[in-house]
Amino acid sequence: MYAGALMATVKKLSAGVIRTDREMADGRTIRYYDSTPAEHSAIDQRPKEAQPEIGQMRYDALLGEWVSMAAHRQARVFLPPKEMCPLCPSQGELLTEIPENNYEVVVFDNRSPSFRPPSTDWKLPVIDSLNTPDGQAAGKCEVVCFTPHHEGCFADLSPQQVRAVMEAWRDRTRELSQDPYIAHIAPFENRGEEVGVTISHPHGQIYAYSFIPPRTQKHLEIARAHHAKTGRVLMDDIVAREIHDDVRIIARNKQWIAYVPYAARYPFEIHVAPLKPVADLALISDIAADAFPEIALEVLKRLDGVFGMPMAYMASWHQAPVREGHDVLRLHWQITSVRRAPGKLKYLAGSESAFGAFIMDMNPEQSAEQLKNVQL
Amino acid sequence: MYAGALMATVKKLSAGVIRTDREMADGRTIRYYDSTPAEHSAIDQRPKEAQPEIGQMRYDALLGEWVSMAAHRQARVFLPPKEMCPLCPSQGELLTEIPENNYEVVVFDNRSPSFRPPSTDWKLPVIDSLNTPDGQAAGKCEVVCFTPHHEGCFADLSPQQVRAVMEAWRDRTRELSQDPYIAHIAPFENRGEEVGVTISHPHGQIYAYSFIPPRTQKHLEIARAHHAKTGRVLMDDIVAREIHDDVRIIARNKQWIAYVPYAARYPFEIHVAPLKPVADLALISDIAADAFPEIALEVLKRLDGVFGMPMAYMASWHQAPVREGHDVLRLHWQITSVRRAPGKLKYLAGSESAFGAFIMDMNPEQSAEQLKNVQL
Repeated sequence: MYAGALMATVKKLSAGVIRTDREMADGRTIRYYDSTPAEHSAIDQRPKEAQPEIGQMRYDALLGEWVSMAAHRQARVFLPPKEMCPLCPSQGELLTEIPENNYEVVVFDNRSPSFRPPSTDWKLPVIDSLNTPDGQAAGKCEVVCFTPHHEGCFADLSPQQVRAVMEAWRDRTRELSQDPYIAHIAPFENRGEEVGVTISHPHGQIYAYSFIPPRTQKHLEIARAHHAKTGRVLMDDIVAREIHDDVRIIARNKQWIAYVPYAARYPFEIHVAPLKPVADLALISDIAADAFPEIALEVLKRLDGVFGMPMAYMASWHQAPVREGHDVLRLHWQITSVRRAPGKLKYLAGSESAFGAFIMDMNPEQSAEQLKNVQL
Repeated sequence: MYAGALMATVKKLSAGVIRTDREMADGRTIRYYDSTPAEHSAIDQRPKEAQPEIGQMRYDALLGEWVSMAAHRQARVFLPPKEMCPLCPSQGELLTEIPENNYEVVVFDNRSPSFRPPSTDWKLPVIDSLNTPDGQAAGKCEVVCFTPHHEGCFADLSPQQVRAVMEAWRDRTRELSQDPYIAHIAPFENRGEEVGVTISHPHGQIYAYSFIPPRTQKHLEIARAHHAKTGRVLMDDIVAREIHDDVRIIARNKQWIAYVPYAARYPFEIHVAPLKPVADLALISDIAADAFPEIALEVLKRLDGVFGMPMAYMASWHQAPVREGHDVLRLHWQITSVRRAPGKLKYLAGSESAFGAFIMDMNPEQSAEQLKNVQL
């Protein structure tokens, strides 16, 4: 046994959620989020393993973007059978990432991270075209287990469970924002082997980047230009248009609205935004957080209902970067599905991948109609 | 029979390639490119069908990009069996897109195009955030059949065949550049069902956009900034670095160089550039065009050799837009493969798709080494 295993820190969050931190055998942290009181004293019994070294970031001078190299990830766990699932609770001989034999929601440091905490004197290299030096792939990667149950999916969670997940996202955003090397926090979920999921247990991830990722940077620039020209926040105007047009709204409650965006890029694409706009998850009110499970579950059930089959999707939280853009960017949840028909996927092929130009195989209004017509 | 079927126009290109144009039953044009003289008198016997209407372009105000809606494409041909392949030569009862019972290389207008020629008074709408009006999805989409043989792939072509394909790419770039509504020309090939190929017959496509696609726009901005700062062309400096570093070069001849780029984004990514830089395919010299088949075939054979299996890839020509950036952008061919191991693909999932931040699972030098080590 090692010293860290004895320590547990406990923290009270909103909605009665308690966070309990424990150290894993290799020094990583696991955080239990419980809406029902639970003690977490189980110790990670696995042998201590060395953690991978920090990867490298190289500057792609052709496109002006950072690319991260994480060669150690090549050997990461790939579609393990249920009886070897690392995200299930530990049971008898099976020692997983979660030492307890049950849990509600956990967040732990990814064992095969694309980004890691850098050395203390780290700074993002100054960008100067081909003269830009390589950097450490600084950042943090965390895994969010939505449920102890291996089968099922986010849409099957209870509202209480979704609320606990929301609390974990808020808490992680708040805490990761304190790290001086974190520039942007991106919670997301990939669901379905069709989008590259390597472990089927329902889970999401949080990537905390040391740079503003390219698509967020573009959001930021566009939103700044809109603000400079109109004095208004772009996302507020976008939500106002959706409410005005009305035809693409697929769900709403007192705190949230869900719509297929006017210029959707994917056969099924849903944006979910709080009606009281905020810049990031840390700033969301308890009232909005409490109302999230209802709309989240409705939206995902509609998505699965379109073809009566589990839908492969990516769901990602877009929020303002940690130290920039709080005046012009607004939090929202983007769900995009590549399934365009029961037996057909949309691929990001030549036009999308190589040139960035998206072709939509259906009209957004048609997609919204199909989602609205699902009987829940 | 209709009048157009009787007309054929013939044009002499480089390397002894002859282009013969004929009209298809529904009014589309098919262009035969032959390096061995051939007569093309076969008439498209199929019933005349109405062509799809032009789609819509919507401005995505959140990201500042055009998204094209092509709802009619939803019903396009999807993985037809060989005996129903629309890209094989017509044989007996099988009436395909190619009326002749043999051909060398053909280029014809796509039957399910994402873009179509617009009305004569068309102009790209002026972009003004949410006030940007919708536009017609103006442009052209063409199919390039590399060979009459259904089996096989680009890497199996003879050098003479590749030379004819190159001549077709040059010719199409020259001709499409004349259309006043074409802003950018993008020849590309998707290979493998893993990247969404819907017809397995070896073929590529040409997308001629009425706008500069987002990724090309970014290339352009970055190259302009580099030029403004250094007075030099970015791509020239990039190729010079690759030659200097030497470790990532996987093939070269007197006219071309092929390398894994310094900040590669895909497990296997190869850029192929002419050593005498030019802005686009129309400007490439005959000497360079003649030397292309050798390096193209070597590169693709190396790619298939890495795992001893056909490699899913996207191969795309990046060139300067039609009326912009000829001073700062340079032609090159980018081949990217999503296969990271024999049974594993790299997916553009959360980090890449939602945030634009690429994570590479191996080092570019390691990838180059594997490509170089392939015994041809």
